[in-house]
Amino acid sequence: RGPRKAEPVVTKLNCSLEELFNGATKRMKVTRQRLQADGSTLRPEEKLLEIHVKPGWKAGTRITFENEGDQAPGVVPADIVFVIAEKHHPRFTREGNDLVVKARVTLLQALTTHTQSVRTLDDRTLSVACNEVLSPGYEKRVRGEGMPISKAPGTRGDLVLRFEVVFPSHIPEDKRDLLRRALPA
Amino acid sequence: RGPRKAEPVVTKLNCSLEELFNGATKRMKVTRQRLQADGSTLRPEEKLLEIHVKPGWKAGTRITFENEGDQAPGVVPADIVFVIAEKHHPRFTREGNDLVVKARVTLLQALTTHTQSVRTLDDRTLSVACNEVLSPGYEKRVRGEGMPISKAPGTRGDLVLRFEVVFPSHIPEDKRDLLRRALPA
Repeated sequence: RGPRKAEPVVTKLNCSLEELFNGATKRMKVTRQRLQADGSTLRPEEKLLEIHVKPGWKAGTRITFENEGDQAPGVVPADIVFVIAEKHHPRFTREGNDLVVKARVTLLQALTTHTQSVRTLDDRTLSVACNEVLSPGYEKRVRGEGMPISKAPGTRGDLVLRFEVVFPSHIPEDKRDLLRRALPA
Repeated sequence: RGPRKAEPVVTKLNCSLEELFNGATKRMKVTRQRLQADGSTLRPEEKLLEIHVKPGWKAGTRITFENEGDQAPGVVPADIVFVIAEKHHPRFTREGNDLVVKARVTLLQALTTHTQSVRTLDDRTLSVACNEVLSPGYEKRVRGEGMPISKAPGTRGDLVLRFEVVFPSHIPEDKRDLLRRALPA
């Protein structure tokens, strides 16, 4: 058996959804014990590790820097491992390769016509025309406007609008007859 | 130290929501090894154990029959333990002391008036008048029509109607103006 290898040092690497969408370079400073030229003295040294986050990487993706951990006499230094984590995003949640956005509409919009604006992660504004009935929980997919798929560069998941319908809190008595004429029993 | 006691024998006792509502007597036949008069021969014997399920008992309630398990020379027989489990019910789900029933209404019913009939676990029919707007997920409570509370005999939880609103799949063009006159933008 060769020399003992120390346990890997695992660190979470928080990325915004924008970084995972566009790709990014993250620099992480690590401080580790390094053996000096005499072969026995240890001294802390800093090193900058560079991580090239590819578009479409998911939470849980692991990036390993071999043998970059603490040195010690007679031991193979540990690997340093970064694990991608996804920061909370104010507008989108990611479901696999899809981006899900909640769309709140009034009941009238849900029943007549509605155009939903969505600001994308790369700062465009999509206008999604909805002429169908938007029942609560209804999902409308916009193909190819989701996250990049890292294993198939150039392809993307979908953007999913998930509708929430805000009901009026009260319907005045004199409006009810109009509703009876407009809606099936 | 006294003689060793065998591990308890734990058995699930499935009860319907009606049994947990009304109370019930459950008879469970157990077969266990019993020492004969000679003090060494073992012979299987059947026994009928009677469990008096009290109104309001919950899943997880344990009923212990001490020393009713297998006998053996020099060993204290195991306890037999029954643990209440709740069978799935076609109409109600129990949430603590409340009974929850899904009520599906049409959009027109949700926006105008609606009387929801509910058949109770003790086979009465409640008529619950709903004159408020029933938005999706809205809950209406009927006090004291839930499960009995076993620790406070004579008191009961609530019946909760949880509304699901079924939207029409399509609104004809010529009805939309009626909706615009009836509903806030």
